[in-house]
Amino acid sequence: MLIDVLDALVGAGCTPTVVSTAPIEDERVTDRATVTVDDRSLTTTVNARLAEGTPALVLMADLPLVGATDIHHLTDSDADITIAPGLGGGTNALVVRDPAFQVDYHGASYLDHRQAAAELGASVETVDSRRLATDIDEPADLAEVLIHGSGAAHDWLVEAGFELETSSGRVGVQRAE
Amino acid sequence: MLIDVLDALVGAGCTPTVVSTAPIEDERVTDRATVTVDDRSLTTTVNARLAEGTPALVLMADLPLVGATDIHHLTDSDADITIAPGLGGGTNALVVRDPAFQVDYHGASYLDHRQAAAELGASVETVDSRRLATDIDEPADLAEVLIHGSGAAHDWLVEAGFELETSSGRVGVQRAE
Repeated sequence: MLIDVLDALVGAGCTPTVVSTAPIEDERVTDRATVTVDDRSLTTTVNARLAEGTPALVLMADLPLVGATDIHHLTDSDADITIAPGLGGGTNALVVRDPAFQVDYHGASYLDHRQAAAELGASVETVDSRRLATDIDEPADLAEVLIHGSGAAHDWLVEAGFELETSSGRVGVQRAE
Repeated sequence: MLIDVLDALVGAGCTPTVVSTAPIEDERVTDRATVTVDDRSLTTTVNARLAEGTPALVLMADLPLVGATDIHHLTDSDADITIAPGLGGGTNALVVRDPAFQVDYHGASYLDHRQAAAELGASVETVDSRRLATDIDEPADLAEVLIHGSGAAHDWLVEAGFELETSSGRVGVQRAE
């Protein structure tokens, strides 16, 4: 999934930095991005990066459907804070142009980030995108990758024997024996 | 949810017909739309409507986040078939401009509809929208309405005592005792 996200970023002309809790030596990552190790919490780490400079684009690594077009939608916005919410109220992507803004990824962070922006008097734009909203948290989320994906995560699932399971209401996944 | 969908359609300048399995006398519906009773399966009913004339926009009633802008995104497309997929591979919205196209809502209908279009040589556009993708099937889906909604379904949930439940990973809902 990280490789798909990096492909989208590089395809959109960005020069990404991967912030990881452990070193990454996989060349598919290191060929596309600089890797920085930081084992603090997500919120603390992102706020430390924002303190180093804005504007900044903060993108989660579990968004295997994202494409370069989606990155442009985010970076083309002139708002002080641009948010692509995830399913369940998370913040999957964020463009911060106001240097005073700080993140808090706990709970329904989309609402908290809107509130924080309002308190700063910062303008907010919400990007409406299914691809940016689809973070992969639960096994059933893998169905989205099989249905809509075309990158590394999709190919890995297919090679590992995962396929759609359509017998119940909403489509899920199963792994071939 | 139906009222929210009708508000979006009317706001976009459409004159909607509600196809229902039973009569609807609620004035919030009849003031906004013509109601037609048809108790056949969804697939049979929609194909019968398409046979009466295209282009046609087919929108599910359980999309409480949809707005007039989203309707314009669908109807502005020149493609023979325009699809807004739902989560789990469903087809939440469809614009059919090719009179030979027929629907089949069983299973991962997004993929089946793409396949059917390809067999007809019909062009396909997929609309990438979280709001159009968010159909309300499961209790957890109600969190999306509380987070992002602003219409009748949102207001009903609030009045009925539903609130966000943020103690677990993905945000859910609970009803106040």
